[in-house]
Amino acid sequence: MMAAQAFGSDRPKGILIDLAGVLHTGNTPIPRSLAALHYLRRAKIPLRFLTNTTRSPRTSIVRMLAGMGFDVEESEIITAVHATRQHVQARGLHPHWLVHPDVRDEVGPDATEPNVVLLGDAGPHFSFEAMNTAFRLLMRGLPLIAMARNRYFQEADGLTLDMGAYVTALEYSAGVQATIIGKPAPAFFAAALADMNAAAEDALMIGDDLRDDVQGAQAAGIRAILVRTGKYRPQDETAPGERPALIADDFAAAVSAILGDSSLRLPTT
Amino acid sequence: MMAAQAFGSDRPKGILIDLAGVLHTGNTPIPRSLAALHYLRRAKIPLRFLTNTTRSPRTSIVRMLAGMGFDVEESEIITAVHATRQHVQARGLHPHWLVHPDVRDEVGPDATEPNVVLLGDAGPHFSFEAMNTAFRLLMRGLPLIAMARNRYFQEADGLTLDMGAYVTALEYSAGVQATIIGKPAPAFFAAALADMNAAAEDALMIGDDLRDDVQGAQAAGIRAILVRTGKYRPQDETAPGERPALIADDFAAAVSAILGDSSLRLPTT
Repeated sequence: MMAAQAFGSDRPKGILIDLAGVLHTGNTPIPRSLAALHYLRRAKIPLRFLTNTTRSPRTSIVRMLAGMGFDVEESEIITAVHATRQHVQARGLHPHWLVHPDVRDEVGPDATEPNVVLLGDAGPHFSFEAMNTAFRLLMRGLPLIAMARNRYFQEADGLTLDMGAYVTALEYSAGVQATIIGKPAPAFFAAALADMNAAAEDALMIGDDLRDDVQGAQAAGIRAILVRTGKYRPQDETAPGERPALIADDFAAAVSAILGDSSLRLPTT
Repeated sequence: MMAAQAFGSDRPKGILIDLAGVLHTGNTPIPRSLAALHYLRRAKIPLRFLTNTTRSPRTSIVRMLAGMGFDVEESEIITAVHATRQHVQARGLHPHWLVHPDVRDEVGPDATEPNVVLLGDAGPHFSFEAMNTAFRLLMRGLPLIAMARNRYFQEADGLTLDMGAYVTALEYSAGVQATIIGKPAPAFFAAALADMNAAAEDALMIGDDLRDDVQGAQAAGIRAILVRTGKYRPQDETAPGERPALIADDFAAAVSAILGDSSLRLPTT
């Protein structure tokens, strides 16, 4: 890794790690990522795992990661769903939720007299009827808040349409602009940093999404590494906007660069 | 009507009329529109009815209009579905269709090896699965053609999400830009004018959609009247872009202004 020294002499005091596309694809660990996380743990750097996945509650995410062999605590996972619930509670909002049934317990029931439309990734539950109900509330003047606006994510059988499509659909037809809670919102990164007492300039983000992970973190003052796994595409290396601090082949290569440690003896395949 | 003279001395040689929101709402004629169309027919000005509705074939539209008492020939109706079929045939395209089942007979089956994704207003059939299938084809590099990109339309029970939401959704996630066939595409207006041998400067458009009917026609060099029925909203009168040649309370008021004829004796309610 040509950039190993860049991080070796300036070891971060907190690392933010995206999950899907960085550690795993679907239910399969990305090669070398299990060993790399193990080595990173030994360096005793605080870690937080940031995900815009809004189809699953935090408990399911921990269970899914454990099933693949990743040892991650629930308290280390920062989800857009959790951040949304905090946002709603702090402001006393009464949402109409358009969300996946699996996170319904985490967000609570719909308000009888809603004053905001709140979108998660309903996935297969983005029915026309659900969309039209949300649209009509927006046309009555309710504001739109979205947990994320990701374009797509990597599934085992290919790229899949993410909730950003539906956020954009409602924005277009209702003539509104959504407030985004998850990545790349600066407040989302700031909450994760606060949770591990790290300053932005001492932290580092690792992600496979140039816009939401890398450039989002950089806009919040955090250095960021783009990995060439998950939804990464070669054109990301020449896309407009700020360049990543480093582009690494995968999570293991990123960890190796961060620790600047050639004795990592990570398996090479 | 203060602007009656503006049209009275310069009677159009062809009139393009939007359907939903101008002549009717759902299955109910808009007050005075039946009588107004009757008077307009007596003036022997060629008429064409332009609709971006892509949930119904032309035969159903004629039947629906007849059921309300409107005497309109199938050959007078120009639909975005019909224009799309002509576009596809002229270019020898092999579409994957995401359309309402009711227009499947009109567009034909999906190509086994599609080279274009073609969207109509699938309405309740805009399922996540159908959208994700279209998304994946777009990510393989297929271009996107949409019959229309209307934001919403007026139904009996309120405004309803139109296909523009789903066009925009796919554009966002796949990073593509759709080609639009129906209003406000200049080619769509041009085809309607050619069909009645009228030049743009001699024609007139009547619609309830400021952007797609009025400003679309004006961009094609056609004068246009906005009616205060259907999806019209008061803010349309101060919206950006070119102003309508006239804003009329309804279709009857528009006809009265066009014919400049105070002897119309249209019913006033």
